[in-house]
Amino acid sequence: MYEKIVEAAKRLDGIAHKTPVHTSTLLNELTGNQIFLKCENFQRMGAFKFRGAYNMISSLSLEERQRGVVAFSSGNHAMATALTCKLLDIPATVIMPEDAPSVKTAAVKDYGATVITYNRRAESREQIAQELIDEFSYTLIPPFDAEPIIAGQGTVAKELMEEVGELDYLLVPCGGGGLLSGCAVSAKQLLPNCKVIGVEPELSNDATMSFKSGELQTINTPNSIADGLNTPSLGNITFPLINEYVDDLITVSEEDIKAAMYFLWTRVKVVVEPSGAVALAAYQKLAVKDKRIGVVLSGGNVDVRRVGELFKDIIN
Amino acid sequence: MYEKIVEAAKRLDGIAHKTPVHTSTLLNELTGNQIFLKCENFQRMGAFKFRGAYNMISSLSLEERQRGVVAFSSGNHAMATALTCKLLDIPATVIMPEDAPSVKTAAVKDYGATVITYNRRAESREQIAQELIDEFSYTLIPPFDAEPIIAGQGTVAKELMEEVGELDYLLVPCGGGGLLSGCAVSAKQLLPNCKVIGVEPELSNDATMSFKSGELQTINTPNSIADGLNTPSLGNITFPLINEYVDDLITVSEEDIKAAMYFLWTRVKVVVEPSGAVALAAYQKLAVKDKRIGVVLSGGNVDVRRVGELFKDIIN
Repeated sequence: MYEKIVEAAKRLDGIAHKTPVHTSTLLNELTGNQIFLKCENFQRMGAFKFRGAYNMISSLSLEERQRGVVAFSSGNHAMATALTCKLLDIPATVIMPEDAPSVKTAAVKDYGATVITYNRRAESREQIAQELIDEFSYTLIPPFDAEPIIAGQGTVAKELMEEVGELDYLLVPCGGGGLLSGCAVSAKQLLPNCKVIGVEPELSNDATMSFKSGELQTINTPNSIADGLNTPSLGNITFPLINEYVDDLITVSEEDIKAAMYFLWTRVKVVVEPSGAVALAAYQKLAVKDKRIGVVLSGGNVDVRRVGELFKDIIN
Repeated sequence: MYEKIVEAAKRLDGIAHKTPVHTSTLLNELTGNQIFLKCENFQRMGAFKFRGAYNMISSLSLEERQRGVVAFSSGNHAMATALTCKLLDIPATVIMPEDAPSVKTAAVKDYGATVITYNRRAESREQIAQELIDEFSYTLIPPFDAEPIIAGQGTVAKELMEEVGELDYLLVPCGGGGLLSGCAVSAKQLLPNCKVIGVEPELSNDATMSFKSGELQTINTPNSIADGLNTPSLGNITFPLINEYVDDLITVSEEDIKAAMYFLWTRVKVVVEPSGAVALAAYQKLAVKDKRIGVVLSGGNVDVRRVGELFKDIIN
């Protein structure tokens, strides 16, 4: 699998941003560790998802490209697919819930994709996608459970480790597990002693339950503020990879997530979405000192006009 | 003057952050230029002000250090003085208006400084400071009108130019003129062909009026949302330096400032305060293409819980 990550890195070279690694004197002092924040919120379209989508779509044959692609997502994967298709001049159709945030629907349309909306309570997005595939022979671009997607996301950890060197821990948020499994494969290749920890909201702890029990668990309609991680379950490809390469999974509360996000906004001065702050929220559960800890800030797509509501209970 | 900036850079080495320079594919596409954002919002305590305060305070004699310092400021200069004194173990007294944002007063206290509050309508902060100086022989750390302060701020442009090389323009926000004059001195030394443009809010355009008329102008109680730039006038040291080294000053509206700030938050994913977005707000007034433009994002200290109010009129 690692060689696919190396190939992905070549495909992404000069296209995706090599995102900066930020450090914070204050964060290091408060935690007693050296923390390296891999800022995928600064990635193109604002999240790591661009890496996987670009890696997969740019690998399609000329014929597949001409027929076009379809994706379903209410969030970052929709934007990643739309931006990639704009760059490669490929027709894209994105199926989004009719109650998706208007900023996200608008961004997808701005990138030139066709948006089809559906009613989340009455319709199945998988069925709508299948009908389009049957009719137009589109290629489906899955949000996480495909090797080219996982390989693209794995370049995040590869870049981080090549830049900062030795790490004792790597904290990665986990939704469907594309980012986590890809980063774990990179880590075990490049820094075999680095412990890779997946982090999930307590409210959507299906991956943690799956990892601990060894059997794939599903949570219907998980509802964390970390909306990017509200996937019902890991995938058929990501689950075995996580079992093999990840050292542990831990969960964080909604309050932990808000506090980490508030810290990142106010002290590190970076705009992260709730999902993007989940990995940092976990550092205190490690209860370690004098370690070098990589933390993936996965994305920054959030309605900044409404963020005050999230922070309203935080004093100072 | 430039040799003082070189000395300041040495004093700040390993203490102040060499802040990153961010670029945005989208911003370059939208403007038709290459824009280099010098991110002083990522500086320690969240603004460039740390450079000047640290440079001045670390140059004090042992005797002056033991007696302690005093500063008056409702914002970033207060935090910069307090953090510097914490690092150097020097007693600091900061005079702040009683209606200063509680987050800022709390930050100054967290750094260990003594805060004295006053009523902006009934009392004079200069007089309070003078009484403290008379009684305790504190050294006054002015917010901008002192050579060591200006020299510290000039390291911003020095670092930017040493990192990115040739620039056609450098846009710098202007309040009291410490940052602008210091950056202009650096620019004229390192890149003599780079045009240095100071940017002010229309609502506090005293520096622009001073520059155009050749005589120091004062605006009483300017009231821009860019609160860091609401200084009534340039100083006795900054004004002549700006006359000599700056190519032009231009002004931006409150709407321009909000739009630039919203762009930086939502597309570049960086937390900047209104003053920190002022220089970017000016780029369109240049009406140039295919140029390399440096833009100083001066700071990121803003109450993120209330920023929705600033953006409430912005659609999408």
